[in-house]
Amino acid sequence: MRDDLPLRVVSALVGASLLLLVLWAGLPLILPTLLLLLWIGGLELKEMLAKRGIALHFPGLFLGGVVLYLFSLPPLHWHFPQVPWREVALGLFLLGSFSFELLQGANLPRLAFTLLAFLYLPWNLGYVLLLRETPDPHLGLWILSLPIVASFATDIGAYFAGRFFGRNKLAPSISPGKTVEGSLGGILVSFLAMVAYTSLVREVFPFGLLELLFFSLLLSLAAQLGDLAESMLKRYCGVKDSGRFLPGHGGLLDRIDSLLFTFPLTYYLVVLFT
Amino acid sequence: MRDDLPLRVVSALVGASLLLLVLWAGLPLILPTLLLLLWIGGLELKEMLAKRGIALHFPGLFLGGVVLYLFSLPPLHWHFPQVPWREVALGLFLLGSFSFELLQGANLPRLAFTLLAFLYLPWNLGYVLLLRETPDPHLGLWILSLPIVASFATDIGAYFAGRFFGRNKLAPSISPGKTVEGSLGGILVSFLAMVAYTSLVREVFPFGLLELLFFSLLLSLAAQLGDLAESMLKRYCGVKDSGRFLPGHGGLLDRIDSLLFTFPLTYYLVVLFT
Repeated sequence: MRDDLPLRVVSALVGASLLLLVLWAGLPLILPTLLLLLWIGGLELKEMLAKRGIALHFPGLFLGGVVLYLFSLPPLHWHFPQVPWREVALGLFLLGSFSFELLQGANLPRLAFTLLAFLYLPWNLGYVLLLRETPDPHLGLWILSLPIVASFATDIGAYFAGRFFGRNKLAPSISPGKTVEGSLGGILVSFLAMVAYTSLVREVFPFGLLELLFFSLLLSLAAQLGDLAESMLKRYCGVKDSGRFLPGHGGLLDRIDSLLFTFPLTYYLVVLFT
Repeated sequence: MRDDLPLRVVSALVGASLLLLVLWAGLPLILPTLLLLLWIGGLELKEMLAKRGIALHFPGLFLGGVVLYLFSLPPLHWHFPQVPWREVALGLFLLGSFSFELLQGANLPRLAFTLLAFLYLPWNLGYVLLLRETPDPHLGLWILSLPIVASFATDIGAYFAGRFFGRNKLAPSISPGKTVEGSLGGILVSFLAMVAYTSLVREVFPFGLLELLFFSLLLSLAAQLGDLAESMLKRYCGVKDSGRFLPGHGGLLDRIDSLLFTFPLTYYLVVLFT
């Protein structure tokens, strides 16, 4: 048992309650929340990379993220479906970044890492706005909850399977605590959670067991890859936590890392298979 | 006069003839041509960046580009308009790149620069496939030719305006030969060329003079920004030419730099305004 367990439990309960409120309330609360996550997460990335001597252009990242969020708003996609809005936002970000470096000193690593941060953070988070109203604001709440359920179930399954059966290290140089058995447990629990969850609203998720196995496998792998990717980033920068966000839980990025890849994946699966 | 002028003229004529043939023939010739441009341009980027000690993962860049090209093919967009195909390709590239670095040594600068190269080269070139068949294969030929006309007209206008009226340096530290007067001449000639060009096919371009001024201004600025961006890249890497592609004309990227930003811009303008 860790010393800060009571603090961690209280933090987690407060965090989970806030999350449910924001998800339920829809875009009027989700948009400002995503902006806050971009602000805090962007600063965490900037400070982590600075420890390795790499510059990040935070104002450009934030401004680009704002444009991307606005261009991810569902009404734009409903009324002008022929326009690839998020690609336009990425194009504006690229043109703006090149123009900035032309004026400010041709720091190409700064450009490359700011672009990576743009695609890592706001690009992935922006799909939350689309998911929340796909196919409509009522059913969208269920769709958006899917990657969150899959990601939490993966974390829980991996924790317990790793604790009881963990033998073989998964990626010792990146994240020494993870085991192959934990990873498989995460996939299994994610599958069970998705079977239970999708049975609640059959009209949104008319899938058979084989399809659910396929979806949960992909989502659980994406969640674990997101976790490992952030661990790699921290390891590269030589930090243990990405920052201090929730007391007892490390940084914001440590909290959302396994979600970052599951949001886009869920959106792609939803538009491909429904 | 430069010594290699005859060589340059012959090369240019051969290149322009090949370009016209490829554009006219459509996707069966354009797709392999784009793959060739990705191969040669990707190797030029890799070799340029290597001079600065920066690694580029060429196999990943090429493979990601192939997937992106396939996902840019117009039939996919016609039959499944609700799927953001190019975003899916970008997502696969991101997941693949993170996975590769997790397995191969956590070289994050390599990941960031390969991502930059992906968005700089195949991401921008892939729009050629969409433009060639928007709104259909017949009229698409005219649409695709638009950014090429605007870019060539900008180059010619900038060259002559700069030569006869050039006084004030535009970006002396990046590209010492360029002047503000040349840039304005490029915009003016681009506008004149677009007025002449669009008058040829009124059913594809039913635009007034004010709209054409707006479009040609944006396209000419994008062409000049593309030129400067590639100059910045070369300056950063300490090379004069990006490689040796056409005899007497420098590297492939030196040839296509001003087109790279005009292809996506044209696509966005076409889907927004038609």
